[in-house]
Amino acid sequence: MPESWFLEKHTRHVGITLEVRERLFEGQSEFQKVEVLDSPEFGRILLLDGAIMFTERDEPAYHEMLVHPPLFAHPRPERVLIVGGGDGGTIRELLKHEAVRSITLVEIDKMVIDVCRRFFPALSAGMDDPKVSVEIADGFAFLDAHRGEFDTILVDSTDPIPLTTENVSGPAEPLFTPEFYGKLHTALRPGGLTVFQSENPFYSGAILAKMHRELRGVFGKVQVYFSNIPTYPGGYWSFTSASDTVDLSRLRVERPPAFLDDLEYFQPAMFPGALVAPRYVDRLLA
Amino acid sequence: MPESWFLEKHTRHVGITLEVRERLFEGQSEFQKVEVLDSPEFGRILLLDGAIMFTERDEPAYHEMLVHPPLFAHPRPERVLIVGGGDGGTIRELLKHEAVRSITLVEIDKMVIDVCRRFFPALSAGMDDPKVSVEIADGFAFLDAHRGEFDTILVDSTDPIPLTTENVSGPAEPLFTPEFYGKLHTALRPGGLTVFQSENPFYSGAILAKMHRELRGVFGKVQVYFSNIPTYPGGYWSFTSASDTVDLSRLRVERPPAFLDDLEYFQPAMFPGALVAPRYVDRLLA
Repeated sequence: MPESWFLEKHTRHVGITLEVRERLFEGQSEFQKVEVLDSPEFGRILLLDGAIMFTERDEPAYHEMLVHPPLFAHPRPERVLIVGGGDGGTIRELLKHEAVRSITLVEIDKMVIDVCRRFFPALSAGMDDPKVSVEIADGFAFLDAHRGEFDTILVDSTDPIPLTTENVSGPAEPLFTPEFYGKLHTALRPGGLTVFQSENPFYSGAILAKMHRELRGVFGKVQVYFSNIPTYPGGYWSFTSASDTVDLSRLRVERPPAFLDDLEYFQPAMFPGALVAPRYVDRLLA
Repeated sequence: MPESWFLEKHTRHVGITLEVRERLFEGQSEFQKVEVLDSPEFGRILLLDGAIMFTERDEPAYHEMLVHPPLFAHPRPERVLIVGGGDGGTIRELLKHEAVRSITLVEIDKMVIDVCRRFFPALSAGMDDPKVSVEIADGFAFLDAHRGEFDTILVDSTDPIPLTTENVSGPAEPLFTPEFYGKLHTALRPGGLTVFQSENPFYSGAILAKMHRELRGVFGKVQVYFSNIPTYPGGYWSFTSASDTVDLSRLRVERPPAFLDDLEYFQPAMFPGALVAPRYVDRLLA
């Protein structure tokens, strides 16, 4: 069998390329193209509209960093909402926290859930947990019907404008607007916080800067922290937290739970260091 | 003119690919193949044996992080040695520190210096500074003749086994051996420290782990810190410092010099955060 290589462009002029063993699935949903690849370096890979959503090998650096900082920073994160996240990786990490009593996942694209249940059963397994309810719905409309309900909301979405589609908006674009930020604010209980995946600062700094500016118009405290994710553009990813009360720089884990020993990426000692950006990023966010 | 793309494999199964506008130089020295590309995304790029040494756009994340942590951590870094670093970027950053009185650069390959002076004049300009002396020599032999002379030694070399050559050693391999670490120790003045570029932990963790273990056999304190460099493998790079006395976690900049405002990447607030690794790296270094 001849070697086959996948290419994802990160801008028009640079990209990552990786060897593919087999294309396990290819389908077109109402919202996007859904593909699953198998690769020698990263195991299985989920693509949406041709962009890598995660690979089995480096997804912990994404899911652990999206979940554990806000969950340890909130004093009592009982009710959690995930917008997007149909692969189940975010649920998997949330279920490690004993304080969590209910998890609602609102995913717009049922095909993502079905495909991940089939090809990534270890990521998706948490969907069957009794604490979890899954709704196939638009996150935007869902929030209108849920006010003051959640302690933490994690926006685990695709990019607003996928690099692969070059300036054509993706299904997640409405989630990166001041109108949506206002709905998140209303859906939180007092003392709550929300965390977004917020792009890589090197190639997509303008998106991060706009988001940061607009979130500051809605929330009292907006903070950005970083993770190394080798298969993402620039190998460098940002997460943005927004809250009226929670300050991630005060993240302390008083009684470290046993699951921390088994994580691949996150450790509490990373904070506040993970909040300190390179200078060029500080300038973007000033 | 048809589009041309350069590919650097980071392992046999994954790589970065970027658009090339023009190949400005190609030559074969006694030690390695030397090339200069011009690219729309990153400006000019130096390749040695087909591997990206630096690009104009993201080199500050490398040179600033190699130089400023040890220079601020050492109480009086007057005499500095660079092993490698023929492009001049490390000299450029060192000259920003007023405490530095002499800089010696020992580069094995004269072609690297000549090519960088021609194609990267902004990086190389510092070579003409009266504080700087440049020697074309093998770092290994040079150290034998210089004992107890330097406050700081920066090992700004190529990789021991370039990924592009697949298990064939490069000219820098002798610099990653206990014998060389011993010579560094001897060449330092009391209170001195040395910092190495030490590979990316995601794909080349075994090299970092071996280096860390062997350095601990020679120096009292060995520490690893990290930087995001988008064009390097995994976008993630490690630096290893070794000293009998200097502790990078105590890095403080009491009177911040004005040049800090103009840096692209480093800021003192990064430390001690930059020293905290993801868990999988801690396990490598345990």
